[in-house]
Amino acid sequence: MSVESLPKTIVLNSEGTAATIVNQAKLPQKLEFVEITTWQKMVESIKTLEVRGAPAIGIAGGFALVLALRNQLDACAKSSLDACLSFMEQVAEQVVQARPTAVNLAWALEQVLDEARVFVARAGEEVSGPDVALSSAETPASTESATSMKASISALIDVVQAKAEAIRNEDEASCRKIGAYGAKLLPNQASVLTHCNAGSLATAFYGTALGVIYAGFEQGKIKRVYADETRPVGQGVRLTVWELSQAGVPVTLQCDNMAASLMAQGKIDAVIVGADRICANGDTANKIGTYGLAVLAKHHHIPLYVAAPFSTIDASKQEGSRIPIEFRSSDEICAHTPEGVEVYNPAFDVTPAELISAIITENGVFYPPYQF
Amino acid sequence: MSVESLPKTIVLNSEGTAATIVNQAKLPQKLEFVEITTWQKMVESIKTLEVRGAPAIGIAGGFALVLALRNQLDACAKSSLDACLSFMEQVAEQVVQARPTAVNLAWALEQVLDEARVFVARAGEEVSGPDVALSSAETPASTESATSMKASISALIDVVQAKAEAIRNEDEASCRKIGAYGAKLLPNQASVLTHCNAGSLATAFYGTALGVIYAGFEQGKIKRVYADETRPVGQGVRLTVWELSQAGVPVTLQCDNMAASLMAQGKIDAVIVGADRICANGDTANKIGTYGLAVLAKHHHIPLYVAAPFSTIDASKQEGSRIPIEFRSSDEICAHTPEGVEVYNPAFDVTPAELISAIITENGVFYPPYQF
Repeated sequence: MSVESLPKTIVLNSEGTAATIVNQAKLPQKLEFVEITTWQKMVESIKTLEVRGAPAIGIAGGFALVLALRNQLDACAKSSLDACLSFMEQVAEQVVQARPTAVNLAWALEQVLDEARVFVARAGEEVSGPDVALSSAETPASTESATSMKASISALIDVVQAKAEAIRNEDEASCRKIGAYGAKLLPNQASVLTHCNAGSLATAFYGTALGVIYAGFEQGKIKRVYADETRPVGQGVRLTVWELSQAGVPVTLQCDNMAASLMAQGKIDAVIVGADRICANGDTANKIGTYGLAVLAKHHHIPLYVAAPFSTIDASKQEGSRIPIEFRSSDEICAHTPEGVEVYNPAFDVTPAELISAIITENGVFYPPYQF
Repeated sequence: MSVESLPKTIVLNSEGTAATIVNQAKLPQKLEFVEITTWQKMVESIKTLEVRGAPAIGIAGGFALVLALRNQLDACAKSSLDACLSFMEQVAEQVVQARPTAVNLAWALEQVLDEARVFVARAGEEVSGPDVALSSAETPASTESATSMKASISALIDVVQAKAEAIRNEDEASCRKIGAYGAKLLPNQASVLTHCNAGSLATAFYGTALGVIYAGFEQGKIKRVYADETRPVGQGVRLTVWELSQAGVPVTLQCDNMAASLMAQGKIDAVIVGADRICANGDTANKIGTYGLAVLAKHHHIPLYVAAPFSTIDASKQEGSRIPIEFRSSDEICAHTPEGVEVYNPAFDVTPAELISAIITENGVFYPPYQF
């Protein structure tokens, strides 16, 4: 039992034709892997939370573009590099809408698209030369240029795949760095409360909030983790409890409304959570319930740490009220709501920066007032 | 649709041989009434939450004593008034252990026992006269005294039944008074958040926290009620949402961890909850999650009101740390907890008096510093 024995959350085969994900909707009853070969199925898996966690859905977005190019690039798109790029952009537009709050999805798609844009622009310069204004990516006229274009497109797709895989690999590396930075903040014999699952399952591997916990555990600093159930979807009871127990970390499960009781008894030394989007001022969107925990932590003089890769920071959003909050189906809370009863089911809330003791990233630990 | 159309939570037949309860474990799927004829079944129903809510289980306790006397009084107990009293005390000892936190159960049992003790003491004085030291309640020697004893025991049981029924009727009257007092505290167009079910179902009828809401609604002051789901047993989603919608009160359901998000948006004007035990200093035990709500309410400058009958006040407990907290089975949170995972499942928490804006009782509204 160790963190290293956990499954990789999402991987792409070397041909770039299939991604394999841990089906998080089936845990903890069953550790099931799902093979995904189309970008549409990846979108579906993101929407249904088969793959979830801000960093993991970023990776899924990048892989969706690779799958689109490898498996669904139609004749039209194959006709030119610009058409390929346009196709990718259309796919990305669909993928990004799968879940609006986590910025990592948009960020990863943009990273891959940018790589493709640079490749296409360079190819254009090489073919057309400095004195030809038209893009090289127009429909080729001869067989020779058709063969050449095919090679160019193949090279473009290779570049896209390499970038998507790099995002996955960098995420794992970032998580290990976040863990190392974060573990330094923990006292010895720490009892830590976490909410939702910002674990290995939510990332390429290792986790953000749980990455800090794993690193702390490896250093002998973790006494116990208190995992919030995390209604309505139960990421705590289904995923966090599963992966912590798989990794041999002592874990106690409680309902979300029991966190205050634990804090009042002095049982919690720190709260560590992940993030779906961090604004320029440090305001942080994360799983619904995080904001309440932050208020409770402040009241009990307990530090609350946010652990997230730097890609979670959205410099374009000055402060938290600008973050779009996803509302999900009432079915998640109650299968049969009585007639006339309304259901309030936001998937996220925003914790103001002043309630966050520090933000732990792979680039180091940031303290308020936040400047990234 | 009105509050008056709600079912009576718990009633005793006129013979005192059967109590009928709304089976709260079956709501909202089914409005099922259960007939209870033994005190042991009543204990079972209290433990399994078929009957629940501090005032309602107090009433159930009183009725359990009546059922014990009417249906299970054995030959030995019938032999004397003292034996009857002793039998009642033995039953009460068992009943009070069904749920340890709510004081109303112990209070109601003690009320009924006291009535019986007074009756037995008076009967002793009448029979034995001033110069006979022995109690009248010894085994009678003659047929004449046997007939007389039978009549005395019958009269004792009548007294016990009358007291138990009075507790039920007074609870309903108290709830209506609590409603009237509490409604005055609400602003117009109030949006009120409540936790668990301190409703008609938790009392004889009308409710405590929801009594305030019903009274406010009848006065046109309630815009909307936000009902916490109330994990792990779901008293909010199963009971509060059901009875409010039955009564025609606009209601929104949310998970417990969403309350803070509602408060941050300015959607909550007041929080109103019930109580299972109120200490001499105002510290209040109530459903797990209440304490956290109180901290959140304070942070958002929202008043938090406790509504409860005066019988909820336990003058013998100076402050909250003295209240026994019931821990319940891990199954309530998670049917299949992974091996090695601990579960924290207290049924109640204690809210310190300083976080309570006012305590609403049938004897009026109390403000801090609390002196009852």
